[in-house]
Amino acid sequence: MDSKVNLAEKLALLDGPFRPGIVGTLNDYKLAVVKAHGEFVWHKHDDTDDFFLVLSGRLTIQLRDRDVELSAGELFVVPRGVEHCPRADEEAHVLLIEPAGTVNTGDAGGELTAPERRI
Amino acid sequence: MDSKVNLAEKLALLDGPFRPGIVGTLNDYKLAVVKAHGEFVWHKHDDTDDFFLVLSGRLTIQLRDRDVELSAGELFVVPRGVEHCPRADEEAHVLLIEPAGTVNTGDAGGELTAPERRI
Repeated sequence: MDSKVNLAEKLALLDGPFRPGIVGTLNDYKLAVVKAHGEFVWHKHDDTDDFFLVLSGRLTIQLRDRDVELSAGELFVVPRGVEHCPRADEEAHVLLIEPAGTVNTGDAGGELTAPERRI
Repeated sequence: MDSKVNLAEKLALLDGPFRPGIVGTLNDYKLAVVKAHGEFVWHKHDDTDDFFLVLSGRLTIQLRDRDVELSAGELFVVPRGVEHCPRADEEAHVLLIEPAGTVNTGDAGGELTAPERRI
């Protein structure tokens, strides 16, 4: 990356919910933006923590024992191996950070699995 | 980290510019907030890229060949080995992400070197 990234401009390029776009890298991590709307899928990542920062709107990260409610300016890191399911009743914009190669649906797979793509 | 982090609340705990506070971890990376005001010090990190996301205000990341001007919602990753010097004419609030153990002043050291501290 040799130029700055305006996150709102990148989010405007996304065509639907739960389809992340990679906007940069930090060493071997990918920096991605995603629109969340509706319910994602329960999954976990056995090899990595999972970083969520809400940029606008509200995001609920459902865990098996509780919900974590995030508003703009709030972040949460799901520990590796912990099952979670993001949900947004209205559209939310989120910054995600994970190691490159991390699959968005983790161990669950399925139709919400999205390819890694740079925007 | 077992609870969410409100970045504005954490920033309110900081007592001055260029004294980062760690608010969480992502694998072996530290997530830190910092107030920037004035000019930092020219330095580089030979072993890691350096992530800056402006949360409020404006931050200039001076590089040797150009300035990168960041407003709220804009991020920039300084590649490893690249000399840089952050500057903020008015107070800016920033999210930093780097591997744990990364020294804020990189190879430069000096009086602006800050200890790693959790807030």
